[in-house]
Formats: sequence, C-alpha cells, structure tokens
Amino acid sequence: MALRGALYRLSHSSRHFNHTCQQSRAHSVAVLGAPFSKGQKKRGVEHGPKVIRDAGLIERLSNFDFSVHDFGDLNFQHLEEDEPYMDVKFPRTVGAANKKLSAAVRNAVSAGHTLLMLGGDHSLAIGSVSGHAQHSPDLCLIWVDAHADINTPMTSPSGNLHGQPVSFMLKELQDKMPDIPGFSWTKPFLSSRDLVYIGLRDVDPGEYQFLKSFGIQYFTMRDIDRLGIQRVMEVTFDHLLARKQRPIHLSFDIDAFDPSLAPATGTPVNGGLTYREGIYIAEEIHNTGLLSVMDMVEVNPVLGASPEAVEATATLAVDVIASSLGQTREGAHTSMDEIPSGKNDTELRL
Amino acid sequence: MALRGALYRLSHSSRHFNHTCQQSRAHSVAVLGAPFSKGQKKRGVEHGPKVIRDAGLIERLSNFDFSVHDFGDLNFQHLEEDEPYMDVKFPRTVGAANKKLSAAVRNAVSAGHTLLMLGGDHSLAIGSVSGHAQHSPDLCLIWVDAHADINTPMTSPSGNLHGQPVSFMLKELQDKMPDIPGFSWTKPFLSSRDLVYIGLRDVDPGEYQFLKSFGIQYFTMRDIDRLGIQRVMEVTFDHLLARKQRPIHLSFDIDAFDPSLAPATGTPVNGGLTYREGIYIAEEIHNTGLLSVMDMVEVNPVLGASPEAVEATATLAVDVIASSLGQTREGAHTSMDEIPSGKNDTELRL
Amino acid sequence: MALRGALYRLSHSSRHFNHTCQQSRAHSVAVLGAPFSKGQKKRGVEHGPKVIRDAGLIERLSNFDFSVHDFGDLNFQHLEEDEPYMDVKFPRTVGAANKKLSAAVRNAVSAGHTLLMLGGDHSLAIGSVSGHAQHSPDLCLIWVDAHADINTPMTSPSGNLHGQPVSFMLKELQDKMPDIPGFSWTKPFLSSRDLVYIGLRDVDPGEYQFLKSFGIQYFTMRDIDRLGIQRVMEVTFDHLLARKQRPIHLSFDIDAFDPSLAPATGTPVNGGLTYREGIYIAEEIHNTGLLSVMDMVEVNPVLGASPEAVEATATLAVDVIASSLGQTREGAHTSMDEIPSGKNDTELRL
Repeated sequence: MALRGALYRLSHSSRHFNHTCQQSRAHSVAVLGAPFSKGQKKRGVEHGPKVIRDAGLIERLSNFDFSVHDFGDLNFQHLEEDEPYMDVKFPRTVGAANKKLSAAVRNAVSAGHTLLMLGGDHSLAIGSVSGHAQHSPDLCLIWVDAHADINTPMTSPSGNLHGQPVSFMLKELQDKMPDIPGFSWTKPFLSSRDLVYIGLRDVDPGEYQFLKSFGIQYFTMRDIDRLGIQRVMEVTFDHLLARKQRPIHLSFDIDAFDPSLAPATGTPVNGGLTYREGIYIAEEIHNTGLLSVMDMVEVNPVLGASPEAVEATATLAVDVIASSLGQTREGAHTSMDEIPSGKNDTELRL
Repeated sequence: MALRGALYRLSHSSRHFNHTCQQSRAHSVAVLGAPFSKGQKKRGVEHGPKVIRDAGLIERLSNFDFSVHDFGDLNFQHLEEDEPYMDVKFPRTVGAANKKLSAAVRNAVSAGHTLLMLGGDHSLAIGSVSGHAQHSPDLCLIWVDAHADINTPMTSPSGNLHGQPVSFMLKELQDKMPDIPGFSWTKPFLSSRDLVYIGLRDVDPGEYQFLKSFGIQYFTMRDIDRLGIQRVMEVTFDHLLARKQRPIHLSFDIDAFDPSLAPATGTPVNGGLTYREGIYIAEEIHNTGLLSVMDMVEVNPVLGASPEAVEATATLAVDVIASSLGQTREGAHTSMDEIPSGKNDTELRL
Repeated sequence: MALRGALYRLSHSSRHFNHTCQQSRAHSVAVLGAPFSKGQKKRGVEHGPKVIRDAGLIERLSNFDFSVHDFGDLNFQHLEEDEPYMDVKFPRTVGAANKKLSAAVRNAVSAGHTLLMLGGDHSLAIGSVSGHAQHSPDLCLIWVDAHADINTPMTSPSGNLHGQPVSFMLKELQDKMPDIPGFSWTKPFLSSRDLVYIGLRDVDPGEYQFLKSFGIQYFTMRDIDRLGIQRVMEVTFDHLLARKQRPIHLSFDIDAFDPSLAPATGTPVNGGLTYREGIYIAEEIHNTGLLSVMDMVEVNPVLGASPEAVEATATLAVDVIASSLGQTREGAHTSMDEIPSGKNDTELRL
C-alpha cells in the first residue's frame, strides 16, 4: 500500500508551490461584454460577446458554486471626428471606449466580483487592465496570445491599436510613447517584470527589441515545444508569484490557439496552442486561486469560413473560460455527503 | 564507438521494467463481434463490428505471425418485457447479452486464444471482463476512455448501462449495488487496485467520489498533459504488474481519442488522446507480452457526419488493435535469414 | 533580479552544445527546382517546384539578410528506351536525372551557395546528396521522412526508386547493390554513422534489417513520443556533430508530417510530425549554422483532395524551408539601432 500511495501522490497531488489551491475562490463572477472593433480593421469582432454567450457561456457558468452576474454589454460610441494620429487608426474612439471599460472593470472588481470581459478586439485590454490596476495596483498580467501586442505607434507596422495595448501599460515605455489623442485619462501602471507572455509566434522587430530590452519573461511556441506547458506554467508562477501572492489578470487572445481550433479570428498564425495546452493554462491559473480579471478577446464570427468554424471558436472560448473559473477534467469536486447505497436505494431516491 | 553505442541504447533500448518483452506473445487471436447497443440510447453502435471488419481488420491481422480465428458475431436478443429498473434502461436485455458474451469470452480464453471483442457499446465490458476473470481470476484491467463508466444505478445521471459497467465488477462497490434484474449471473470479482484508467476527462460527481474513495489509479487528460504518455504507461505497469506478471484486459473505448480523430461515436468529449498517444498506449501494452483480452467499443457508424468520418474512426480502431497485437512503427521484426545481396541477385530472385 | 536572470536564462538561453549558433550563416541561398517524378508511379510530383514557389517561397526568403538566387528548374529527359531492371522502374531515366542534378548541386555548393533543392520525388536525393558530397566529402545527412528509403532493388516491395535512394549512398551497402543501368556515374560515398533518420513510421522488413545491421541512428515517431522532439534533436547533433563541425545535408520529405497537415503527397502515413515538431527540427538545424544543402521533396499537387489541401501542403513546405534558413518564432533578430521614442516622433518619422 505504501507503493500505491506514493504512485497516487505522484500522479494526483499538486506539485505546485505553496501559493496554489489555498486562496479563496470566486464567490461571484461578473460578465461584461465589450462589443468593440475599432482597434483593428476587420469588422465582426464586435459580435464576439454575442457568439460567446450563444455558445452557452452563462449556462456553463451556472454549474459552478459561485453566483454569476451578467452585466450585459457596454455601449461604445464611434466618434465621427477621429483622424489618425501618425498611423494610429481611430485613436479617440479607442481611447474613449477603453476609458469607459476601465471604469466598469474598476467598479466590478471593487464590488468584489471576479470579472470576465468578453471582447471585442485586444485594444480593450488597455481599459480592462488599467481598471483592474486602479483597484489592485499590485496585479500581475498573464498575456496568452500569438502576438506580443507591445508595439508603440512608432514601431507598429499596421497602426492598429489592438497590436499596441501593452505599450500603454508599461512604465518602461513611458518615455517612448507620444501623447495620443483619446488616452490622456490613462498613465502607464505596470512594470515589465509583472508581465508574462505565453504562446508568441509572430513578433514584430520593434516588439522583439522591447521584449529583450526590458527582460520580459515570455514563452514562444518554441519555448513551449522545448519546456512543455507544465514547466512553462511553473516558471510563469515562479516569476510572478514567488515573492508574493497577488491578483492575476489573464488576458487571453483566442488566436493563441492553433488556427485549426480557433479559425474565426482576425490574425491567425499557424503552430499555436493545442486544445489541451490552452485548457492546462486555464486550469493552472484557476488553481492559484488568484484570478481576478479575465479578458477573452478576438473571437470574430464574420471571419469563420462556416457556421461550424464560428461555433468551434466560440465554444473553445467558453471552455477556456470555464476551466479558468474552476471546471476540471477529473470531475466535479462538489461534496456528496454519502455515496448512495444500492441496498436501501428506495429510501435514498424518494 | 562507445558514444554511439550509448546513444543507440538511449533511443532504442527498452527502458521498461523487467516485465516487458519477455512473455510469450499471442499464437492465436480470436475475433468476436458483439453487435449490441442497448447499454445506451443511440442506435447504430450495434454496427461497430461490421465497420471495424470493413476497415480491413482481418486482413491487417493476417500479416502477423499468429493465427486469426474469426468467430463472427454473437446473436443477442432484445427482450420484449424489460421495464426500467430505477432509471436503468433495458436491464434484462443488457444482462442477458453480457451473460452470453461472458461465456463466449471464457471459452475463447480457456481455449488458448488471445481474444479481441468488437462492440457494441461499453456495457459489454461487464460480460467481457467477467468472462475473462472466470478463466484468469488474477487479471488486471486497463480502461482507456474519456469516461470512468463507474456509476451505479444510484449515481448515474443518465441511467444508461454503458456508463456503469465498472460498478458491476468492483468488490468495493458490492454493497452499493442493488439487485438489478438480469444480472444475477454475475458477482463483483475485481479489486479497485487492479484497475487503471487512462484518458478521463468527463467524470460524473458520483464517479469522482468512487475514484477517490477507493484510491483508484487514474490518469485524466490533465495527468497526461503533466506527465506525458510515456510516464503514464510506466506508472500504469508499475501499479498493475510490479508485484507479479498477470494477464491484462484492455478495454478501449474509441471516445478516448479526440473527437477530431474519432468522430463516429456516441459521447465525444474534446481534448482527447492524439493518434500517437493512442498508438503508444497500444504498443506499450503489447510490449508487456501480457495482453489476454481486448475490447474495442463505441464505434458508431450512424453518428459519423460523413462516410469519411466513419471510415476514419473505424480505421483508427483497426490501428489501435494492430498495435496492441504487435504492429510496430519501426518496421516488421520478422527475421530475414540473410540480407539479399545485389551481386548475386539472379539467384536470390529466381 | 538574480532570480529573474536565472529564469530568463532557463527559458531563453541556448542550452545546446558549443556547436550551435557560432557558425557563419548563409550569405547566399540558391534555389533549384527539380520537376521529376519517375522515381515513383504517381504523376504530379513533378509540379512540386511550381506549387512551392507559388506558395510564396521567393518572397518569404527575400525577408532574410542573405541574397537569393533562383536558378529555375532543371530540365529532365524521359528516356524512351528504359526497360525495368529487376523490379526497378525507369532506372536509366532516374539515373540520368540524378546525374544532372548531382552536377548542378556540386556547382552551386562550390560557388558558395547554400542550396535549396525543390523536388520532385525523393529519388532525387541520390543526385542531391552525391553532388553535395563531391564538394563536401565530410557532410552528414539528416533524413526527415515517414519512410527510411533504404531499400535495395532486391528488398524493395514496390520497385520504386524513391524508396531506395539511401541504398545508393551507403558504403556499407556497396556489395549488396547490383549494377543498375543509369547509375554507373555514382558510387557509395556515405558511412551509415553519418546519417540520422527522424520521423520513421513505415519501414519495410529489409529496411529494418539494414537499420539494425548497420547500427544506424534513427528516430521513429514512437521514439519522438518517448523522448520528445527536443531530446531527439540533441541526440541527433550529438551523434553527427560532437566529434567535429561539418556541413549538414537536410533531406526533408513532406510526408514526415501528419497527413492532416500535408495531405498532398504520394505515400502519406498516419501519426506523423506535428507542425510544431517540424518547425522545431528546422529551427534546430538552422541554429547549428551548418546547413549546406536542403531537399524539400514529395509535394504532389495532383494528390490534394482540394485546392486548399494543396496550398496547405505547399505552404507547410515553405514554412519548413523558411525556418531552416533562419525564420524564428520569437521575432526578427534584425538589429535596430535605437528604439524609436515617442517624445520626438516627428523627427523620427520624417
């Protein structure tokens, strides 16, 4: 029996640091839609919140032992007068939407909710992370994405703000950022050491410079190939949480997954996460007990080649969300006071 | 050369325990179809034996150095008078079919065959494993499946017996099981320590309780993500075979594979085994030299979205069977007395 | 900061041997098409060079800091009088084509180019590797393929020469090879210890004998399952390069990939390389700085079930080529003298 015990522990015990599984979990999850697409050029990603809900999000979350509060969708304005700033498209529109989102996120987190933000394009992370940081200045950020999204207006090859949100957050980039119209409400608030990237495989030259210059901890798909996803998550948590427990902001771009799994998105790149790797990332983040805000962005139903492609992408988003919030692959951990016995089943089944 | 030798051993030598590769292999394989579907609600899985044969099973097995005996399909009766017992559907029909199968399996194994049972739904494991156990009371059971199939009639959410077969086998569950009509012929015969699950990812709450209460060794897909399939198989064999060599019963539900590989099945669950993981499991089981009975179940041609989907699923089943019975990825190990030489090829090729 | 430094090194430093990343990289890449299909029976693979170019090859290579010289396609003759020799089909046609290719490869390598040969079927490796060896007798050969392609005319089950090229190269097989019409121009030049296979999963009985008899270092898909692709590459380089640095010939058959990724090929076998494993192999070979000649063969557009299947296969070939020649997943390593600063952006963007 000693042998069995040891084997059992090997396969099932948590081998994580002492920061895992000891925090209080979500008691209340707030869902907030952000139907916004002006951070990039392709129309359709504003329907992300709808298709993620249609894929059964709220019903799936209703199986958990937290309460769910669906705050519906924010209402964003498209500003008529919004000339490009340098190459940056729709700066005032993107700035205003993020200002609104930032306040909503701050309020939800302040009210004690774990917040789930449904995008929309990834420029929305400016508002989501900044709002979170207003309540939790010590947060750390896990950015799961094929792209680093850390271009500045000067390094961006496209001018799309969904490729630049991280540059608005980092203190280290403060003196590299111009004064972009629409963003006077926010200031850099995050240190580059409080950020980890997972899933990168399409990094622009300027972005590569930033990653290296600031010593940012990042894991490309090549790193995942070399280390395995388990080790990647261990190093991620060691990097972010070893010194202290603190709230996690998970910003998950669906294009982190391989395009064969998440075809309905704007900038797919081959060689992405497998289904199981994505779920593993989500499970591990849940297991820290520290998830405070989660973004799920870049699901674009207009770009799916078929209804099945759209549904697969949206369902994948729901699976990642559910795993981030506690769904497990080894079954429900709900307690059962007693295993029903067949010998007196009529009693039990009255 | 010492270096090359060491490297060669690293990559090609068996690093397994001393129980591998030393047993006598199958000299005779018996194939038995079990066209039965009353353990669940979806029609079509009774055609499993036919589509697996149509995918070239017998021809594939004819390449091996064992003889193949195809006993055709068992003939099962659907009982007219078969009211549900509690929520359990068709208890007498399922019981009678399994009684018949149990006798057939016992006879085949007693006659010295390695038996391959083609389902049919997974309720058939009640008969297959019990028949095997009548001849080999010391068998161990490797259950490859997305589901644990260990519900009792009291814990089952669906009432389908294909989700309950293991509960009929386990001694530890004896006092939890009611007297279900149709099953008076069988009694629990397996200790929970003689069972290992591989591939779980959809476990019901009652099942989770049983897995934990009895300390059953199981590997969810998350465990495979963490440990890797090689380590999973090492721990499996350590758990089951370290104390003594004994016959293996492999009960393989095709839904253990990812639905992208095995779409034609009744209860697919995302995030399953890759093709290579499934083949690796089969190869490792073959390499023990201890495989005695194998079930291949839940291939349902009616549920494939296209003929290609059905064929892919059935061919996958054949591949797993072939690997379990000795097909290797490094080539045929048949001996060739001499490598043909080109310098006297006319002689060799007369 | 010490912690961060250590973590950073863990995930990003090269942990390879001292033979990596220190060689001079390609300054000039020559592209040579070889539209040839007589090494096997299926028509269409002679269009391989065209579809690989059409998938954007030259444009992709133009992003690198080497010059690209496209020498177009060789012009091969089909000989009218070309009776089979034993079972070997078109021996004189295949021999003449390879003689021509051999001279072209020798000339390109002698002129200082890194050569990319686009097949065509894999019989072309006879000419490609032999021409390379004429300039670089100390080369080593990495053969990425589902098949070992090491049959002799006597062991070949099919008689197709694309399953036999390695047997024309190996000194150890010299006395097993008959005098095949069309091949008097070439002699075995490679020792079996200078060859490593990666990706095998369909090996003929005679081939298995050769692999074992000569102690060839090979990695089947099962070996990759067991060791992981990172370890496979480490052992590959240890085997080939530990004693001395020398030119690498990479002969890449697209059927090494899983058929789900590379459907448009003549002899697909299930259970192949993932996209990421193939890219990892290519990246690691690039990182040695020793790649001298690369074959990309067996892309057959006629065998794709749809235009999408053909394009996916051809694009995959381009991705492997680009990674072998320096494309990375962590971004361009081109130097940027200074990170553009936003505070004086008007100056920077004049």
